[in-house]
Amino acid sequence: MAQGTGVVVVGAGLAGLCAARLLADAGVEVTVVEARDRVGGRTERGHTAGGTPIELGGQWVGPTQNRMYELIDELGLETFPTYNTGEIVIRLGGRQMRVASHRGATPRLGPFTLADLAQGLARFDRLASRVDLEAPWQGPDALDLDGETFESWIRRNLRTPLGREYFRVATEAVFSTQSSDLSMLHALFYARSGSGLETLLSTDRGAQQDRVVGGTWLISERLAAGLGDRVRLGVPVRRIEHGEDTGVVVRTTAGDGGDGEAFTARRVIVTLPPTLAGRIDYAPALPSWRDQLTQRLPAGSVIKVYAVYDEPFWRADGLNGQAASDEGPVKVVFDNSPPDGDPGILVGFMEGADGRAFARRSHSERMDATVACFARYFGTKALHPVEYIERDWMAEPHSRGCYGAHFTPGVWTGFGQALRAPIGPIHWAGAECAPVWNGYMEGAVRSGEQAAREVLALL
Amino acid sequence: MAQGTGVVVVGAGLAGLCAARLLADAGVEVTVVEARDRVGGRTERGHTAGGTPIELGGQWVGPTQNRMYELIDELGLETFPTYNTGEIVIRLGGRQMRVASHRGATPRLGPFTLADLAQGLARFDRLASRVDLEAPWQGPDALDLDGETFESWIRRNLRTPLGREYFRVATEAVFSTQSSDLSMLHALFYARSGSGLETLLSTDRGAQQDRVVGGTWLISERLAAGLGDRVRLGVPVRRIEHGEDTGVVVRTTAGDGGDGEAFTARRVIVTLPPTLAGRIDYAPALPSWRDQLTQRLPAGSVIKVYAVYDEPFWRADGLNGQAASDEGPVKVVFDNSPPDGDPGILVGFMEGADGRAFARRSHSERMDATVACFARYFGTKALHPVEYIERDWMAEPHSRGCYGAHFTPGVWTGFGQALRAPIGPIHWAGAECAPVWNGYMEGAVRSGEQAAREVLALL
Repeated sequence: MAQGTGVVVVGAGLAGLCAARLLADAGVEVTVVEARDRVGGRTERGHTAGGTPIELGGQWVGPTQNRMYELIDELGLETFPTYNTGEIVIRLGGRQMRVASHRGATPRLGPFTLADLAQGLARFDRLASRVDLEAPWQGPDALDLDGETFESWIRRNLRTPLGREYFRVATEAVFSTQSSDLSMLHALFYARSGSGLETLLSTDRGAQQDRVVGGTWLISERLAAGLGDRVRLGVPVRRIEHGEDTGVVVRTTAGDGGDGEAFTARRVIVTLPPTLAGRIDYAPALPSWRDQLTQRLPAGSVIKVYAVYDEPFWRADGLNGQAASDEGPVKVVFDNSPPDGDPGILVGFMEGADGRAFARRSHSERMDATVACFARYFGTKALHPVEYIERDWMAEPHSRGCYGAHFTPGVWTGFGQALRAPIGPIHWAGAECAPVWNGYMEGAVRSGEQAAREVLALL
Repeated sequence: MAQGTGVVVVGAGLAGLCAARLLADAGVEVTVVEARDRVGGRTERGHTAGGTPIELGGQWVGPTQNRMYELIDELGLETFPTYNTGEIVIRLGGRQMRVASHRGATPRLGPFTLADLAQGLARFDRLASRVDLEAPWQGPDALDLDGETFESWIRRNLRTPLGREYFRVATEAVFSTQSSDLSMLHALFYARSGSGLETLLSTDRGAQQDRVVGGTWLISERLAAGLGDRVRLGVPVRRIEHGEDTGVVVRTTAGDGGDGEAFTARRVIVTLPPTLAGRIDYAPALPSWRDQLTQRLPAGSVIKVYAVYDEPFWRADGLNGQAASDEGPVKVVFDNSPPDGDPGILVGFMEGADGRAFARRSHSERMDATVACFARYFGTKALHPVEYIERDWMAEPHSRGCYGAHFTPGVWTGFGQALRAPIGPIHWAGAECAPVWNGYMEGAVRSGEQAAREVLALL
């Protein structure tokens, strides 16, 4: 095997680009190989027909995401607050109501439901506060919590139908999958990793607080510009040959499906989501615990949908353009207009079972269903957008789902130790590897930088 | 894309070989491409140092596995009964006892435990009897049952510690994974698919009733002999190019990791376990529902361990060489001696968490742990085998786990319809696709033949 000198980074998303930047700044020869013909991974550049930038992928930042705010600043970018003036539309059990937009405001749900919800949230937070972010498989309750789904915990701990629905909608909004699909331990880990369930769900002082002027993909584009020709696009990795002392050969697929270019290096950082990392052909084959982990971290199911209007008409009605509903297919909505409010843009998400069902339908069926949901929340003006835009992340061959992967029951306790453990010269990074802000852009940045430091110490 | 004439079958396990045989008998041009340098898939040829054949993989057949018995007969092979004379050793909660070997015999466990167990088994069987094998996602309780793990059902429905332990050991023995890891709906589907939980666990009139003289791999070897040079070994498939009207090009990897041979055909039957099928590069990319399914069907975790003795000494003690225990790492043991009982052979299984933990240890640690378990069940004579043999199926690059894949919570209801649905000219088969005897050799045979008939009707 050829002895390379530097480091190959697989994937030019935020994790890969931040890893490469740190290595390049330290004087290490680094090459980023990216399957797509663009950088950014699960963030992606989009525009309305009128030229307004819209994010097809990840878009929000919020408090305690310190590395993201620093990075945005360093790169000469700016943030602006997500539109949050006016009331949110909440729809639960067929009843629609308006709720104040500040954090902690409660919908009018009746005393039994509110007490049930308060008790359920307190119990959830108490359990979450005990999870060890670096090692969720530790702790006296880990096996118990990892032995059940979030859904079965909800059924046992919430007594009212609407209390249960609240948790289910929250699961879909945060994980883009059903409460049936994930481990209770993972739900707790993830909430704590992102500063608590309420933070994950909030705009006011929460994970949806701020946006990036011009679009989040600019972060990756500027990072890539700084790396210059170290970033190679359109080179899907299909095989990694590795040895403890001999370094790595990273082989790619050419445009015609045959052999592409090969890259040699001393070490490689693979930043793909674990499932996709498991689809690379490793020679020699990876140990069983690593491979079996990659069989057990499925990506969420989400289609991001946009409707563009001449103006943000909901604002005049005292609404902030946000909705949360237990009736789909679009259960979560935000005002995603540019800072000047021209044009008015609503963004929504078909998540979990809704995303899976609507992935099988036509573009026009998805558009009709989207505007019907928007009209249900904000009135009939929503029925006639000037443009409809969508991105099905499940169909993207190099993501195969969003927002991120979730741990199914038994996986944290059975395989958690394999998540970040390097295999010889192969290191792992990406949003799914992050102890803090797992699954978010912040987690991707932190994880990429962490892996780069790990590699630097070994070069 | 070149227009092929016949059918390519990916994988020379039982499903692939049976599919190919049916197609060849119908006069169709067929090529079987197999990654390994042998046929048989999850069945594999082995021998003791003294030359006695032993199965490194799948080995038992039992009542209602009609296609397997017919196939064994057609190929000129014979079965013999698994050794079942004498008592079974049962170890639960630190207490070891001997139990009669006929089906339905109950261990002496105290009236509360026995009543609990009887009630739990009856409830399980009642639920299982309502599962629709062709469409487990249908039925009024499907969403509820698919929303929880088998483990949380056990906790709620069994009241005694030993009653719970019984179900957990049964899960490990049948699924080679923990009760935490799988959907309750899947546990019920699988039990019904194999004629009931008691059948899956039994030797007497159960799934472990009979063995094949000479070894089960002979079935695949004889099927392959009949197919002659239609079977190509050592050609791992890495890419399938496909179109509705233009057929398929199946591209393989050469020994040096570069481009190998390409095979063209009108249709392809992929018989790999779903996870491994998902690792092939499809062009164009497969629809999201198919891809996301393959992210959600992890393989079980098992190491098969053998100890060979001069004679089956346990028989003289009135024991049949079978053990079931809640104390590992080897919790399930059988007498696997040849028909004449010379030499004496014990076979055991490190399953689920035990398999995962011991996969990280050394060969000699696994050997020591194995003989220590055998000695605990059958006495100190077990401490000194003449030979120890093992096969870690998680480490096998072309299986990546055994016995089969399990559905995690939410997957049957969310993705079940994608399991067997062809994508244009690509058809799916294998033990995991079978409605009847899912996960067993019988299921593999039935599924392969079913896929071949499906393709025949379309050629």
